[in-house]
Amino acid sequence: MNEPTSDRTRVKRLPERGVYDRDSLDAIIDEALICHLGFVQDGDPIVIPTIHARDGDTIYLHGSPASRMLRLMKRGAAVCVTATIIDGIVAARSVFHHSMNYRSAVVLGEARLVDDAEERLRAMEMITEHVLPGRWAEARHPSDTENKGTLIVAVPIAEFSVKTRSGPPGDDEPDYDLPIWAGVIPLAMTPGAPDPDPLLNDGIEVAESVVRFGQASS
Amino acid sequence: MNEPTSDRTRVKRLPERGVYDRDSLDAIIDEALICHLGFVQDGDPIVIPTIHARDGDTIYLHGSPASRMLRLMKRGAAVCVTATIIDGIVAARSVFHHSMNYRSAVVLGEARLVDDAEERLRAMEMITEHVLPGRWAEARHPSDTENKGTLIVAVPIAEFSVKTRSGPPGDDEPDYDLPIWAGVIPLAMTPGAPDPDPLLNDGIEVAESVVRFGQASS
Repeated sequence: MNEPTSDRTRVKRLPERGVYDRDSLDAIIDEALICHLGFVQDGDPIVIPTIHARDGDTIYLHGSPASRMLRLMKRGAAVCVTATIIDGIVAARSVFHHSMNYRSAVVLGEARLVDDAEERLRAMEMITEHVLPGRWAEARHPSDTENKGTLIVAVPIAEFSVKTRSGPPGDDEPDYDLPIWAGVIPLAMTPGAPDPDPLLNDGIEVAESVVRFGQASS
Repeated sequence: MNEPTSDRTRVKRLPERGVYDRDSLDAIIDEALICHLGFVQDGDPIVIPTIHARDGDTIYLHGSPASRMLRLMKRGAAVCVTATIIDGIVAARSVFHHSMNYRSAVVLGEARLVDDAEERLRAMEMITEHVLPGRWAEARHPSDTENKGTLIVAVPIAEFSVKTRSGPPGDDEPDYDLPIWAGVIPLAMTPGAPDPDPLLNDGIEVAESVVRFGQASS
């Protein structure tokens, strides 16, 4: 499983950073809060952020792609789904060896518009739970009208690649003697205190999913 | 300046979220630590994360696109640069109105490979300072060989759009009576304590840029 799934997903630069196993891919897709969706419109690339969830070998997308992609998706469009997690800034002794620690997953595939209401509902559950685990059980579920008005796109995980960097800077041998601090500034997405809707009725406690989200990230 | 720069950068879904002024665009590009670069390879979209910096009306890119894009860039390739900042998770009373608070900048343009050594050096300075302000003055500058071995791509800011969401959830009127907590979980990238290179010589204090980065973010 440590072979690229195709030549175009082979990591060409710094190939030691390329990883090709599905477990690594799945872990990045599952941890990343959002992904970036690329598609081609009139020959030009378009990249937009969107929320997602993975269900086995399928990535479900939902959000801003909606109307812009609708016509493309109906015909089955080639897309690229990229999920990136930033882990830190790598400060080397030389400018040249500065870098980021990160984990990035790239999936290439043909997008399919989900027209089955049941699959769409399931995808909405996956996406809701992806962003905020436990929220599906707390919030009002979609009505039939809301379900029909929601655009869900499915992308099969077939062709993919993973690229990661971790650990301390790698400087050139002579530079280790320079009196320059080097190391990593770790970075992570962290939640602040929940900010209640000003229109929230009195006496409603913070939802369990929201409390757990804060605990899981601290 | 509140008009889209072209029809294809017009925000089609939820147009109230579209913003078209350059100041908003610049602020997002400058704050985002990385961006996602989209290009077309053999007709298919490819999206990869990369670090960047803005110098006036130009976005400079550097990093993983390197060899994969080299041939494309030499011919002047259409690219899409998207920078996204996540500000929070919007938990509504209904699943349907769940959302993210975010700021997203999309720039469409023709990429140009920077072959002038001086412009390349200037771009390296901008990118280094973008990721870690003050670091250029601390680290060893690129040698001529390192300069020649660095791929820098320039993308003009001409066609662009900005999309943002902020504030509390917007639920449907009847749902405000439901006994469901609603609000926003604020999210931000936060730095941890600097992790020194295990190979760091004794007696070298943490760099000022690194200390300031931690202070600026707290």
